[in-house]
Amino acid sequence: MASRDPLHYPEEDRQFLEKYLPVRNQSKSDGLPFVTLTFATSLDSALSLAPGTQTALSGPQSKAMTHYLRSRHDAILVGVGTAVADNPSLNCRSEGVGGYGGEGLEGQPRPIVVDPHGRWQLGQNTKILNLAKEGRGKAPWVFTAERPKLPTLSALQRLGGTVFQLEPKEEGGSMLNWEEILRTVRETGIESVMIEGGGAVINSLLAPENAHLIDSVIITIAPTWLGQGGVSVSPPRPATETAQPSPVARLKDTTWRQLGPDGILCGYLN
Amino acid sequence: MASRDPLHYPEEDRQFLEKYLPVRNQSKSDGLPFVTLTFATSLDSALSLAPGTQTALSGPQSKAMTHYLRSRHDAILVGVGTAVADNPSLNCRSEGVGGYGGEGLEGQPRPIVVDPHGRWQLGQNTKILNLAKEGRGKAPWVFTAERPKLPTLSALQRLGGTVFQLEPKEEGGSMLNWEEILRTVRETGIESVMIEGGGAVINSLLAPENAHLIDSVIITIAPTWLGQGGVSVSPPRPATETAQPSPVARLKDTTWRQLGPDGILCGYLN
Repeated sequence: MASRDPLHYPEEDRQFLEKYLPVRNQSKSDGLPFVTLTFATSLDSALSLAPGTQTALSGPQSKAMTHYLRSRHDAILVGVGTAVADNPSLNCRSEGVGGYGGEGLEGQPRPIVVDPHGRWQLGQNTKILNLAKEGRGKAPWVFTAERPKLPTLSALQRLGGTVFQLEPKEEGGSMLNWEEILRTVRETGIESVMIEGGGAVINSLLAPENAHLIDSVIITIAPTWLGQGGVSVSPPRPATETAQPSPVARLKDTTWRQLGPDGILCGYLN
Repeated sequence: MASRDPLHYPEEDRQFLEKYLPVRNQSKSDGLPFVTLTFATSLDSALSLAPGTQTALSGPQSKAMTHYLRSRHDAILVGVGTAVADNPSLNCRSEGVGGYGGEGLEGQPRPIVVDPHGRWQLGQNTKILNLAKEGRGKAPWVFTAERPKLPTLSALQRLGGTVFQLEPKEEGGSMLNWEEILRTVRETGIESVMIEGGGAVINSLLAPENAHLIDSVIITIAPTWLGQGGVSVSPPRPATETAQPSPVARLKDTTWRQLGPDGILCGYLN
């Protein structure tokens, strides 16, 4: 299948996802967007075989599901590591959305790249930009702690994208504050964000200090072991006073479902 | 529920497991028993929070399934790490088997402990021995590379257990050869073995040199992240000549099913 073909995700596979998705035209009252954390791992919780590589994990059914999920969110967010390693499209190819049978950019989510250090280099092969030029996706927003470089900023702005410069989380540091990112996103009118990765982003959001920002979690698990040395989802443990570790996070009200060879797990963190 | 109460695993939850289980009274022709690898992990593929500790992962439904699976095998095998850390019962508490409503030791699997160095210390608190004394489980067999200590050997033999001394895999080494263990088990008349853990045993069996010994895999996945530092299932990668790693193992013909909060994944390695 060419990567431009629309993806079909059947109606009968949608229902189990519904209670884990944002309700259309319904805002949360806390000034934050509805946040869905979603990613695909191996059985040994790896996102990829090695840092900086992209590993195909999930089957075609799960891939179609991911694009359906994108169609249900106003924005898709990834970390700069994913943007650099995967050169992702971050658009929605579900049949019927804008650029894939629909009008304009209807149903296309806003791609957001969190790039504290300003590492992401835009060029003529950057898929997100090319899709925006072709009317098959929105131009990206970049969140950074650095002063944006003018050529990058103007290249983005010409396509309808932009750069948001936020204060680093700690003085002299360069991590950003997740709550501030999400509040800023919500202030622009975006009511739902699907966060897709990569490892550093997922692990920091599953950590106790950030887990309250996540409304629901949808994980695709491929029935494969990538083996020791992969990039893993496994949140850091809080530094506690006792020697007894305890589980870092647990999903509530879970639904498991088979999709092709893969398992899909939905749940709530809070 | 007291740990002596029989566990009920409903008929309607049995069917999806059937094609992954040994067929009763049907021997394999290769001189090996039917081997089912089964274990419970967290979402980050951890068996426990730390080495030498036991972590309750799966819910009551999955626990009842595990005991049903035990009733469908002639033997249960664990590594010495599990025997030492968990002091496991390794019997079957499904309602209707011997000791839990049934006659004699009918339906009770033979516990097998693989203990290359002779680390397992038997004592008056060793649950496996106490259950054997009470007629609620069979006495264990121990596979080792060391000469068995006489008190241990006679304590086991008095209850119907024994010790098998095998050659170490490599001269001067103390690992045992999985194929030799399983052939020896089969020669005694045991036609099916459920291998339950722990981490070292599972990772060595998922490695390419041993995966052909496994007939089916049944994994319980609990919807929790134990966090970095747990004991993980993630097989070692083969030392290859290329710099490109590839997935170590993949399950075929998978079935996913929800049981309480947990996901159950069944598949074949070969």
